[in-house]
Amino acid sequence: MITGKNYIGNTLSANGSVTHHSINPKLNIPTDVPFYEATEEEVNEAINLAWEAFKEYRRIPGVRRAAFLNAIADEILALDQELIDAYTTESGLPEGRAIGERGRTVYQLRTFADLVSNDEWRENVIDEANPDREPLPKDDLRKTLKPLGPVVVFAASNFPLAFSTAGGDTASALAAGCPVIVKAHAMHSGTSELVASAIIKAAEKTGMPNGVFSNLMGRGRTVGTALVKHTNVKAVGFTGSISGGRALFNLASQREEPIPVFAEMGSINPVIITSKAINNRGEDIATTYASSITLGTGQFCTNPGLILTVESDKTNAFLNSLAEKTVAIEAQCMLGPNIKKSFVENSASIVEQKGVQVLGTIDGKLEANYAASHVVTVSGTEFLANPKLHQEVFGPFSLVVTCSDENQLLQIVNGLEGQLTGTIIAEEEEYSELYDLIDALENRVGRIIFNGVPTGVEVSPSMQHGGPYPASTDSRFTAVGTGSIKRWVRPVSYQSFPKELLPTYLK
Amino acid sequence: MITGKNYIGNTLSANGSVTHHSINPKLNIPTDVPFYEATEEEVNEAINLAWEAFKEYRRIPGVRRAAFLNAIADEILALDQELIDAYTTESGLPEGRAIGERGRTVYQLRTFADLVSNDEWRENVIDEANPDREPLPKDDLRKTLKPLGPVVVFAASNFPLAFSTAGGDTASALAAGCPVIVKAHAMHSGTSELVASAIIKAAEKTGMPNGVFSNLMGRGRTVGTALVKHTNVKAVGFTGSISGGRALFNLASQREEPIPVFAEMGSINPVIITSKAINNRGEDIATTYASSITLGTGQFCTNPGLILTVESDKTNAFLNSLAEKTVAIEAQCMLGPNIKKSFVENSASIVEQKGVQVLGTIDGKLEANYAASHVVTVSGTEFLANPKLHQEVFGPFSLVVTCSDENQLLQIVNGLEGQLTGTIIAEEEEYSELYDLIDALENRVGRIIFNGVPTGVEVSPSMQHGGPYPASTDSRFTAVGTGSIKRWVRPVSYQSFPKELLPTYLK
Repeated sequence: MITGKNYIGNTLSANGSVTHHSINPKLNIPTDVPFYEATEEEVNEAINLAWEAFKEYRRIPGVRRAAFLNAIADEILALDQELIDAYTTESGLPEGRAIGERGRTVYQLRTFADLVSNDEWRENVIDEANPDREPLPKDDLRKTLKPLGPVVVFAASNFPLAFSTAGGDTASALAAGCPVIVKAHAMHSGTSELVASAIIKAAEKTGMPNGVFSNLMGRGRTVGTALVKHTNVKAVGFTGSISGGRALFNLASQREEPIPVFAEMGSINPVIITSKAINNRGEDIATTYASSITLGTGQFCTNPGLILTVESDKTNAFLNSLAEKTVAIEAQCMLGPNIKKSFVENSASIVEQKGVQVLGTIDGKLEANYAASHVVTVSGTEFLANPKLHQEVFGPFSLVVTCSDENQLLQIVNGLEGQLTGTIIAEEEEYSELYDLIDALENRVGRIIFNGVPTGVEVSPSMQHGGPYPASTDSRFTAVGTGSIKRWVRPVSYQSFPKELLPTYLK
Repeated sequence: MITGKNYIGNTLSANGSVTHHSINPKLNIPTDVPFYEATEEEVNEAINLAWEAFKEYRRIPGVRRAAFLNAIADEILALDQELIDAYTTESGLPEGRAIGERGRTVYQLRTFADLVSNDEWRENVIDEANPDREPLPKDDLRKTLKPLGPVVVFAASNFPLAFSTAGGDTASALAAGCPVIVKAHAMHSGTSELVASAIIKAAEKTGMPNGVFSNLMGRGRTVGTALVKHTNVKAVGFTGSISGGRALFNLASQREEPIPVFAEMGSINPVIITSKAINNRGEDIATTYASSITLGTGQFCTNPGLILTVESDKTNAFLNSLAEKTVAIEAQCMLGPNIKKSFVENSASIVEQKGVQVLGTIDGKLEANYAASHVVTVSGTEFLANPKLHQEVFGPFSLVVTCSDENQLLQIVNGLEGQLTGTIIAEEEEYSELYDLIDALENRVGRIIFNGVPTGVEVSPSMQHGGPYPASTDSRFTAVGTGSIKRWVRPVSYQSFPKELLPTYLK
């Protein structure tokens, strides 16, 4: 049942007087339950509980943390239709997506449970002593990874389950041995509370210390700011806008003790399509990309927002086909009125730039929070001259740039801001001409896809989800996949330690 | 030959008009050659060369980078007595230390050469495709590590070779595939120029691109600030004071594109000595620690600046013995007048705090830049009440805290700022009582030493040299050992890539 309260550790709490409602974007009306924003005292209490819990939780063996994570997965599934209903009501996304995202969330939790059921993830290194070494004897030295401390996770608007309350950040931080305080996203406070209730049940069933998890409500920046500035918070995970992520990064950097902020932010995910590929299979590519541009109403951080082509006989036909197929896909609901408003404003601000031509958009009146997909085009020369064209439009929108030649295309890629992904669509006979392009992309993105689409982010050890700024605030870490556990830990070395005092996994 | 000029890539350059001299601290006089501070144009030229060089250098195979690093080691050795003389003249450190540190520097370069002669260090992960997976097929996905871009290295005052021009930061960044621009330390500009000449010779002999290395002179913060703010600089390495490291961190965090700063800064390196250890072998411990406190005139970041004991029958005798033995060691020269001045001021500011008692110091008049070793003591209660007592005194200085009991000692450890190291001196019969202490130290330090001294930092895969702030700005990385290469790289994933286009080490 959704109560509208915060979880301060295991306790439901609503001491404040400020409330907000989440919104049902399909009906464009507020949902029923008022959510009580956490007060300053509740924020501090959650952090103090987390700090105390950390003393115990960091000592709890991996197999017990694994049991906790698996129990969270079980409890989420046990929420059954209540959770799916809350998700679809608050997000406007269809039930199939809700079930799929729940599946991903459960899979992430179980994957991290598997990861920490043994201690291989700790990158243990053992250098044994060598008392006979010249000129100086060598001491025994062993290194492992230890958790940083309480972590604050900001839930994402666009993944109410997989990147929110029990999403990838929470799963990886809990796996690492860090207590987690979630700042619920105000657009899906109800979904967040339900998931939080599952985490608390799992914590109680598996004997985790009170404070290992809290869930705080808040609409503005007050709760988040208080969390990030608190001395006992040691790291932050965030998925969202550049302005939001950068604000948290600035707060964290200005603390007396700076702490790491892993903000996965904006990306336009360039897709380079060669003329030969367009010539040989333009229709197929158009079909595939129409679907990728509109997937999840375009509300993915890996949405293909920038398509780069070189002028050729068939380029125009391809562009028109891509636009036709994109707008032929039925308009879908966005996550909420604010997201819709930004989409309208941001797509309009691109369309009004010099040289931009609209290839296709959905005509006619749409229901309140439904999005009109856009495919627009501009020349390479205009794109190079106008940084405004590089800005992300969050939603079903793609800007196709027609370059005068391959050199101009390469120049554009080299000048791009950091990106989560880059994609190359090319023919086998062209492979030997692609080295410079691949080299340029390697230097600008976190993941390069060949003859595929950037949407769809595998949860695996080989995934890099993150890229040079502003794709993320720290390109050396991934936000998805088992590697993401590394964000929450630091190495500790043990020199000349008696065996019985070493952590078991260093013996 | 020392010319006083900057290396802008392979070219000696002295376009500016501002000069400085390094100082011979033993004679307390300036050295002969004027050093020309890099101008804004020279700074920009060095960065532009590094940026151009990066395009080529990042593609150069590991075996060729290894040859470059080995050639640097050879050329440093070929400088022979000229380098040793410059080192001892500018640092006031003895010839034995110069030779030892040169050995360490050469060893570091060769260790990184070994590391990158194959591609295991890249943590390559290969997840093969599974087209039959349900509900969605799985793409082939492979991950490796790629260099960030040009790195700025700030040379350290206290290691003119091993943490300076061709020191650990430079060696690891060059190994990773990043061009390096060194900001030479003004206290040893001559030593820096000689080492830079060796690097440039090695770069030319092994065919590295011009701009892969530059060496810039500068005394104030102008050159360093310009370097860190430049958009084509992608990471910074620094070893030095908290104020210097934090200033660089702030600059880097406020850039439009924030970049990582690895500042290895202050540490008082707590040493806990149990009463039983004092009872059983107090004299031996005093001898060992008198030597550790004064090693290198106490100018090590791992110098034991804080010793924690619990009051017992023999504590006083131990303290007096430690003080006697420490001051019995002949006074040594510090690195320069500024370091000596800070040492005098900082030790005085501790001595004047309430309840601090001087156990021993060298009496009588010392030569200009020679340091009077200090051992001082204070009660645990005073230490807990007065954060000023937690401040580092860089030099041969140690504060011994006498705690009322083990609980007070544990409270002190839990309340300490982040530290590079923590040391436990204890007897075998006590091991089972040490779990809480080890747990507390794990949470405050990067390396825990058992029955040893913190001075001496092994260059090995198991080394963690770094700790929670303010020991370093990013506790998740080490500044020493092969792990330090991870500071300069980020992961890149390749999805559904044709084999022939993958990097060789991912095939």
